[in-house]
Amino acid sequence: MIVGVLGGGQLGRMLGLAAANLGVRVRFMDTSAEAPARHVGELIVDDFDRPRRLSEFVRGLSLVTYEFENVPAALVERLSRTLKVYPGPEALRQAQDRLNEKTLFSRLGIPTARFAPIDGPGDVPAALAHVGLPAVIKTRRLGYDGKGQALVRTTGQAAAAAAELGAGRIPLIAEQFVRFDREVSVIGVRSADGSTAFYPLTENVHAAGILRTSRAPLPGRGAAALQRLAERHARRVLAEVEYVGVLAIEFFERAGSLLANEMAPRVHNSGHWTIDGAACSQFENHLRGILGLPLGPTGALGAAGMVNLIGDWPPLARLAAIDGARVHLYDKQPRPGRKVGHVNVSAPSAAQRERVMRAVEREVRRAGRIS
Amino acid sequence: MIVGVLGGGQLGRMLGLAAANLGVRVRFMDTSAEAPARHVGELIVDDFDRPRRLSEFVRGLSLVTYEFENVPAALVERLSRTLKVYPGPEALRQAQDRLNEKTLFSRLGIPTARFAPIDGPGDVPAALAHVGLPAVIKTRRLGYDGKGQALVRTTGQAAAAAAELGAGRIPLIAEQFVRFDREVSVIGVRSADGSTAFYPLTENVHAAGILRTSRAPLPGRGAAALQRLAERHARRVLAEVEYVGVLAIEFFERAGSLLANEMAPRVHNSGHWTIDGAACSQFENHLRGILGLPLGPTGALGAAGMVNLIGDWPPLARLAAIDGARVHLYDKQPRPGRKVGHVNVSAPSAAQRERVMRAVEREVRRAGRIS
Repeated sequence: MIVGVLGGGQLGRMLGLAAANLGVRVRFMDTSAEAPARHVGELIVDDFDRPRRLSEFVRGLSLVTYEFENVPAALVERLSRTLKVYPGPEALRQAQDRLNEKTLFSRLGIPTARFAPIDGPGDVPAALAHVGLPAVIKTRRLGYDGKGQALVRTTGQAAAAAAELGAGRIPLIAEQFVRFDREVSVIGVRSADGSTAFYPLTENVHAAGILRTSRAPLPGRGAAALQRLAERHARRVLAEVEYVGVLAIEFFERAGSLLANEMAPRVHNSGHWTIDGAACSQFENHLRGILGLPLGPTGALGAAGMVNLIGDWPPLARLAAIDGARVHLYDKQPRPGRKVGHVNVSAPSAAQRERVMRAVEREVRRAGRIS
Repeated sequence: MIVGVLGGGQLGRMLGLAAANLGVRVRFMDTSAEAPARHVGELIVDDFDRPRRLSEFVRGLSLVTYEFENVPAALVERLSRTLKVYPGPEALRQAQDRLNEKTLFSRLGIPTARFAPIDGPGDVPAALAHVGLPAVIKTRRLGYDGKGQALVRTTGQAAAAAAELGAGRIPLIAEQFVRFDREVSVIGVRSADGSTAFYPLTENVHAAGILRTSRAPLPGRGAAALQRLAERHARRVLAEVEYVGVLAIEFFERAGSLLANEMAPRVHNSGHWTIDGAACSQFENHLRGILGLPLGPTGALGAAGMVNLIGDWPPLARLAAIDGARVHLYDKQPRPGRKVGHVNVSAPSAAQRERVMRAVEREVRRAGRIS
């Protein structure tokens, strides 16, 4: 059995490693011959917008999935004429555009920050009137790791930011700026047979728009109530679009309530801890879901954490010496802001998790100019 | 960094998967273009005795290891002129020949069954006089999974078996037939820096010469004393040949004592449980050892077990539905007696491990003519 994966980044690589255990082969399509997934499966180097090797890519595939949500909808639709593509085109359409995503959340009764579309420079005043100030102006599509967005505090800043982001040429969205206590995410999975499972909520710490650390299960009080809330929200999204595979939803937590911020129709950085911290990882469960296999256990084995390795060569030998830390490298050349790997932390208690995470962060800092 | 691996079977495949996490690439050499490891690294198809693509294989390698002990010594010696090969040629020489192996055990004070060489048919009477009857006549080299050996109860049977196994053309050994309580193995690892670590002793059940199930830590009483004994024996072997990498030694346990039966200078089927049952698997620790990285934790996480999948297509969906069971498939076409995968079992207690292992075995039996 061969599964096609659009995208050959680290998420594809980890899908490929999980697939190997199931005896499933993976064929990746990526624009780069140096894609991190190239050594864990077959790689077709091609252009997603104007593919030339599509017949080669689809040959013998059982189904297709993707590891990044910016895959062109046209390609997914073309593939889905002859093959199952999971998550399906409808889920992708909702997740690719922040306006669709937020509209879906609202329609399903999932709280979200106020938002308004900006289709041209003239829409800025009305949008601000609706969302208030401060606000965040974002491109509706193709943003990641904090790229394509600006925090604005005045109408003048808003107009300038909208112009800079391409208002009129590129569809934008204005969102209410939300002060939150913390960011949390839920990783859910729905199988082709309709069954669902959810990992424990994960606390995420970002800096400069990039995820730095995750912790699960959620530290602090009230975790059980938040878990119920997040699962209820996620279950609605999964059911609404008849989703198949892993879905991540990021929330802002504020005074015990959750505001949905965005969703990703794919395996997610905030679920990397599941490789070592759950009996069945998000990667294996994504594959199980799309292959129609029974979903695997999603409970956390003890206290789990994750530290992203960003921008520099990680100190492999020093990290390998830390008990309770497991290194995962992506075979990528370091450059500033680039995720080159992560370290999963498994500990019997939250206190021990913190000690191990601090040890990991200390070694990473010592090793160089990781940023 | 690229590690060369002689052999591309399932052991190579699992080494490749472990290497990926460390950001290390693997290049395999195998005689078959269908080698199970071909999708987790680069594969050079070549003949080990008369390699034609050796310069292609060694290009850019950091070091070389192997996943089967029958790799020709000449090839290892040739490679070790320009590259580190771990475990080294001396360890390989000792492990490739049952007479060397048993002589080494004896010299190091490690109890073993009585043994005597049979270099030609005329040696049979003297060999039997030394080892007694019943005895086991074996080829000294190239045996695996019970192949190349015969249990004999009379001198007549011994002469016939020796003739059939090729006495005079092929070096043989006669060994005392040992009645034992059970078979156990120790997986040890020694790093290039001389540090060592040992996994908990594993209980192994064979049938028709093939490993069927493993359990670790050792069930039953006296495990701590046996562990000390096995580690003392293994440590002597590791030190004697300045071993680097994972070494497996199989023992017969009889009334609380251990008789060394054979050793394998490589990762070992009886250590497969470590993938899910230890924080650092035998595969990762082999790589850590040969790369000079600190060795990882070898303690068992709860009660671990392993069920080999042999001869037939395993019932993937049914196995995936069993809580506490993790399937590992090797991407091999089934045929009678062939290992196509294994299922690791992780449980909080030995009793629960037994329940899960029974459930796995039930599904495997139901699925077909697994033998």
